[in-house]
Amino acid sequence: MTHLTPIASSASASAADAIPAAELIAAVDLGSNSFHLVIARIVDGALQLLHREKQKVQLADGLDDQQMLSDEAMARGLNVLAQFADTLKGVPPSAVRVIATYTLRRAKNANSFLHKAKTVFPFPIEVISGQEEARFIYQGVAHFEHYADQRLVMDIGGGSTEFAIGIDFQPLKLASRNMGCVSYAKQFFARGKISDKRFERAVLQAEQELENIVNAYRSTGWQQAVGTSGTIKTIKDIVTGFGWHPHCIELEHLLKIKELVLTVDSCELLDLPGLTDDRKLLLAPGLAILIAAFQMLGIEQMVYVDAALREGVLYEMSDRLQHQDIKSHTIQSLVKRYAVDVAQARRVQTTALEIFSQVQERWQLHDNWQQLLSFASAVFEIGLQINSSSVQRHSAYILYNANLPGFNQEQQQLLGCLVRFHRRKIKPEDFPDFYLYTAQDLCYALVIFRLAILLNQKRRDDMLPQLQLTASDHALQLQLPEHWTEQQTVLVADLITEQQFLKRIDFTLECPGVPKDVIED
Amino acid sequence: MTHLTPIASSASASAADAIPAAELIAAVDLGSNSFHLVIARIVDGALQLLHREKQKVQLADGLDDQQMLSDEAMARGLNVLAQFADTLKGVPPSAVRVIATYTLRRAKNANSFLHKAKTVFPFPIEVISGQEEARFIYQGVAHFEHYADQRLVMDIGGGSTEFAIGIDFQPLKLASRNMGCVSYAKQFFARGKISDKRFERAVLQAEQELENIVNAYRSTGWQQAVGTSGTIKTIKDIVTGFGWHPHCIELEHLLKIKELVLTVDSCELLDLPGLTDDRKLLLAPGLAILIAAFQMLGIEQMVYVDAALREGVLYEMSDRLQHQDIKSHTIQSLVKRYAVDVAQARRVQTTALEIFSQVQERWQLHDNWQQLLSFASAVFEIGLQINSSSVQRHSAYILYNANLPGFNQEQQQLLGCLVRFHRRKIKPEDFPDFYLYTAQDLCYALVIFRLAILLNQKRRDDMLPQLQLTASDHALQLQLPEHWTEQQTVLVADLITEQQFLKRIDFTLECPGVPKDVIED
Repeated sequence: MTHLTPIASSASASAADAIPAAELIAAVDLGSNSFHLVIARIVDGALQLLHREKQKVQLADGLDDQQMLSDEAMARGLNVLAQFADTLKGVPPSAVRVIATYTLRRAKNANSFLHKAKTVFPFPIEVISGQEEARFIYQGVAHFEHYADQRLVMDIGGGSTEFAIGIDFQPLKLASRNMGCVSYAKQFFARGKISDKRFERAVLQAEQELENIVNAYRSTGWQQAVGTSGTIKTIKDIVTGFGWHPHCIELEHLLKIKELVLTVDSCELLDLPGLTDDRKLLLAPGLAILIAAFQMLGIEQMVYVDAALREGVLYEMSDRLQHQDIKSHTIQSLVKRYAVDVAQARRVQTTALEIFSQVQERWQLHDNWQQLLSFASAVFEIGLQINSSSVQRHSAYILYNANLPGFNQEQQQLLGCLVRFHRRKIKPEDFPDFYLYTAQDLCYALVIFRLAILLNQKRRDDMLPQLQLTASDHALQLQLPEHWTEQQTVLVADLITEQQFLKRIDFTLECPGVPKDVIED
Repeated sequence: MTHLTPIASSASASAADAIPAAELIAAVDLGSNSFHLVIARIVDGALQLLHREKQKVQLADGLDDQQMLSDEAMARGLNVLAQFADTLKGVPPSAVRVIATYTLRRAKNANSFLHKAKTVFPFPIEVISGQEEARFIYQGVAHFEHYADQRLVMDIGGGSTEFAIGIDFQPLKLASRNMGCVSYAKQFFARGKISDKRFERAVLQAEQELENIVNAYRSTGWQQAVGTSGTIKTIKDIVTGFGWHPHCIELEHLLKIKELVLTVDSCELLDLPGLTDDRKLLLAPGLAILIAAFQMLGIEQMVYVDAALREGVLYEMSDRLQHQDIKSHTIQSLVKRYAVDVAQARRVQTTALEIFSQVQERWQLHDNWQQLLSFASAVFEIGLQINSSSVQRHSAYILYNANLPGFNQEQQQLLGCLVRFHRRKIKPEDFPDFYLYTAQDLCYALVIFRLAILLNQKRRDDMLPQLQLTASDHALQLQLPEHWTEQQTVLVADLITEQQFLKRIDFTLECPGVPKDVIED
């Protein structure tokens, strides 16, 4: 089933052809229930939606108890991606962001899907965290319509449900819970079966999921509750279909729908105004989750808004063109929270970028690595707050586990990996499995970063001579002035140790003029 | 070789007999070079040393590249422990603290030694972290003689070297580096061989070890540098033996000794005033470490003080009798640094102690568990600073890795373990291997702690009814008022989930009146 929703008059299935490509941006959302595609253009700094596509894939339905995604589900997804690739012809790759959520976040074999996707879909797929998902949804709503006061946003997805509270464009709370209409359908209403007990259990489990955020959300508070997602839209359609309220959902309506749902023992028998056939299997689980949320959070009324993750992604892309950078903001807040020695961070960054400039061409490194090296330079010492001993482990632990707005999961893991191995032994067997980055580029970036830190061990500004670097395959020659190395016995010893460490990634660091470490006897 | 150093006139090898036992305290230090025993008594709040014993064991020499401690080294250690046990007869166990440092900290088979030790030595052995070791050494010096200004303390042990800067009794910086006179003897001067190259390499490696603390130590600064340990005493004796200075060590002296050392090619040929035979093998490595420290930290003069870790332990024991508790102070500083919700911590603590009081007798739990449950209640949410999702992992990570003054390694791991499994799945296979605590007691403590947290999920003071608990072997019955549980559907669901979780540690939680979870179909 495909929805094609022309929004502007110029939109069509070949939307990309009608408009000068440079102005187009597109967002693709690989959800656990449906895949969505949105194309828009930026007109005078504002976003104009041109084209939307939606395909039901039910990816979450293919996730088994061991968190393995079935071949059938993968095939359904790849099929839709191939169609999206066709629609996106003519949109420059740099203007497309593709976001994957719950199912690809959870599936242990997600990388298998991602690698297969490369063959039919030429755009990189970014898997994002639940909190990042909530942030995008919030941005989608916040940009969709202005609201002067605090707003709660809730989105019931196929595998997870996101919550956010914010004011204007600023989210104050972000949360993602592992409960969705597809996964709950599978868990509590298998083969479409409905019973009081099944419904009660679904509500209870959703309430348990919400227990840990209830206090924070209630005490933060909101003046308006907004629902997004197909599930909430369906329930709103039933409410308006019955004429209970022109546009709001209330707990009383949900309980009335529940009574109606419980009069049948199979989802297929449901017959309610506003309920389409393709939504019948998902109504009971979605309703259970919504009832749990209304009851636990004390929501009185909820309005539906037709904006979601993909719109949030689009808005962020257009904002970024206006020189706002959420990633930089995230890094800055880490630097502040963990009281980083910013002078040292700056020294390491300066040296890293100097090395980068001398090796980039030979190693064919993308410009993006510059920003990443800068970020890593800013945060590699945050772990000092835990302990100065093994700081590389502690900093990396925080980076691997913190909520980093603006970073997709691979970017977050890449940052964590650079920091994890910024000194001491390198363990390639502990590198995360990357899909967006090659192992070779990662090794080159690691060499640059480690060298920049090693050379700034003394934490002094007046320390370093001009560096002369010559890159070749898997090797780097570092030329240091002899009169300088003579004074730097410890640094020279560190370089010799570093030569040994780098052997673990089959990399040769040459330092002409620096004495070789000869084991005597 | 045994040193018996009578200090007070009443001291003798049977020191313990002469004094009323209640006043005696003893500290035993299982060092990497020697084992030490000190007995003292508290007179008017002051410490009076009665008896000292020292036995050379060279435990660190038995540590191989895989960090396995050899059977021979274990046998040497156990032999000395048996002798110490004899000396300690008559000293009440509660008045004895036994501290193990570097070698037992590093050895992968340390627990094998600890379990064997139980058969010959009836006092629990506490393995402490390097920073804790530095803290005790600092306290030993600080209590030994007053100094009005900032003081640097350095102690070269068999396997590690500790550094501290402090003022009065307050340490400002604590560090431990993995370099010691026994381990460096093995690594750089095997079979007693001496050469320029070997010496140079030892100094360089020590300098590399110091690189990461140099900036912090230099910028903190000190007015007096104090050395402790046998190695520094030997070097001081050589300096005074030559008449170079009446009591201070200066870099110039160290370099002169180095020249003299390098005139021979084997440690055994060393013949210097003040150098005893048993110190000949350790002079070169100790000297290399001291030269590295003088050069890297810019130490101008160092005085030797005859106080060390064991005295620090004794002073802390006597202080504790005066109601100072370093552990509580450590926990409080974590609570502050991580901005813990103290109201919730207090609620959990109150409930945990209430449960404890009802089960202690039946489960035969030691009073110490009360303090531990209170500490765990205070810090189980510190990981929220990293991420609210999986907070149990983040809090535990911090606790496992932070420097916790006052806690030995097992206490630290126990606290970490309780917090790691304070909610969600319990994985007994991930429990640390404890020697001071039984697996059974740990499980009971975990049940109490988890239940206290579960019952306070709502973070409200007016929430809980009177709890009625009945403990039996591996089981606990929790009686809740029926009229109350009827209102608490989520809490009841949580209790049912908890029943499942506790099965992993073969524990039965019974909640009469709470409906069983029946899987229908």
